[in-house]
Amino acid sequence: MPVSGKLEFPMSKFEHIRHKPPSVASVQRELLVVLAPMRSNVNLSRIVRLVGCAGFTKLIQCGPGRVDREIARDAIDVVEIVQRRSFAPVLEQLADDGYVRVGLEQTTNSFCLFEYSFPLKTALVIGAEREGLSQSELDRLDAVVEIPVYGQPYSYNVATATTMAVYEYCRQHH
Amino acid sequence: MPVSGKLEFPMSKFEHIRHKPPSVASVQRELLVVLAPMRSNVNLSRIVRLVGCAGFTKLIQCGPGRVDREIARDAIDVVEIVQRRSFAPVLEQLADDGYVRVGLEQTTNSFCLFEYSFPLKTALVIGAEREGLSQSELDRLDAVVEIPVYGQPYSYNVATATTMAVYEYCRQHH
Repeated sequence: MPVSGKLEFPMSKFEHIRHKPPSVASVQRELLVVLAPMRSNVNLSRIVRLVGCAGFTKLIQCGPGRVDREIARDAIDVVEIVQRRSFAPVLEQLADDGYVRVGLEQTTNSFCLFEYSFPLKTALVIGAEREGLSQSELDRLDAVVEIPVYGQPYSYNVATATTMAVYEYCRQHH
Repeated sequence: MPVSGKLEFPMSKFEHIRHKPPSVASVQRELLVVLAPMRSNVNLSRIVRLVGCAGFTKLIQCGPGRVDREIARDAIDVVEIVQRRSFAPVLEQLADDGYVRVGLEQTTNSFCLFEYSFPLKTALVIGAEREGLSQSELDRLDAVVEIPVYGQPYSYNVATATTMAVYEYCRQHH
């Protein structure tokens, strides 16, 4: 109850909510991020944090690479990082396991990320920083999505592009 | 024309398109990213690259901070970085200039980023890495958007969160 005679300050409209519990998706989401050998452990670690925050518990990383706890934060403890030596057998296995393999690349016959409907069971296949996905990797994909670039440089950083695709998947399935 | 008697190899469905020219948005987009003093020049530089790729030509950065060309790439040459000492007068001026000031934060009365319709003329206001936006900054906003987190850690990295919001704006206005 306000005390008479004292000034009342209006409540702020926006007040911080700290340590908010995570949201729960209303559908069983199965997004599996599959990474080519990243050149940069920073990009790898950023993607691990992204995957953890977005509520996924597994990631496939082809090739070497060390996750930096300073960057990945708690995600390093909740995301299982499955390490594989070569990419092609992984892509074959994903198909056998019922995943639709969706690459993130600028190619012919790609879908714009704004318009692509992600299947619930998606393997999001990410190429390395400079080379992107090779032709033999592209040949093993079911679809390619592309993010429109409107300025310079002509491509997003690999972790930034992965962020957009993971966001779009979560937006479609939340 | 195929040469008779020679094996024909089927075209690959997905072929790399290198050096693809940027897309052109069909509307006049006015997204202005406004940054609190970032703790990390890496995050600052990543956001500069994001802004450049997304086709915006200006960014407001409060406080010190040096953009790293290795990270920001060509964006350092195409994005004008307006440096300001204090945040509050910037937020006041943005309102005078007709921007809707939209903060990215976990607060009461926030919109979910999935559901918020960005005005064309949006100032996207981003807090620093640990503190986020202060109460006096929140009090100068017209809206707050929030990105659902589904796992751990409980918040996205600041550049990752900014990426999602810029992506969502571009998706709505492309």
